[in-house]
Amino acid sequence: MKAIINVYLKNGVLDPQGKATHHALDSMNFSKVEDVRIGKQIIMKLSNRDKEEAYKEVEKMCEELLANTVIEDYTIEIV
Amino acid sequence: MKAIINVYLKNGVLDPQGKATHHALDSMNFSKVEDVRIGKQIIMKLSNRDKEEAYKEVEKMCEELLANTVIEDYTIEIV
Repeated sequence: MKAIINVYLKNGVLDPQGKATHHALDSMNFSKVEDVRIGKQIIMKLSNRDKEEAYKEVEKMCEELLANTVIEDYTIEIV
Repeated sequence: MKAIINVYLKNGVLDPQGKATHHALDSMNFSKVEDVRIGKQIIMKLSNRDKEEAYKEVEKMCEELLANTVIEDYTIEIV
């Protein structure tokens, strides 16, 4: 079983990495870019058999380690 | 128009960030994790009107700036 976790900064939280990338793209004449936000994608192989159990476990991992829930949100997809 | 770009290390390329995360999860008793790989997710707002044109432009951005194609692959989704 595989979990795909996206961790991204909450709306309103400044994203310096995204800003820098936007700026770099601008200076390379990619003028149609309006906004850039950069997050993490974590891909995890799991030995769980049960989808719901896997989801709950991954959610716990996100809360405890993978995301800083003060400034970050996350989405979990189990495939 | 929005572009969702995932940049991840090619298979076989060592992922120290993923390894460290795996190790940390292990020590927190998440024993069902078999492998962790960490990549970047870039979310971009574009003023393009044409989907195909947007895709081509984002592809160029990936090749020139966003991904290190020696060690990284990427996927592009235009929504």
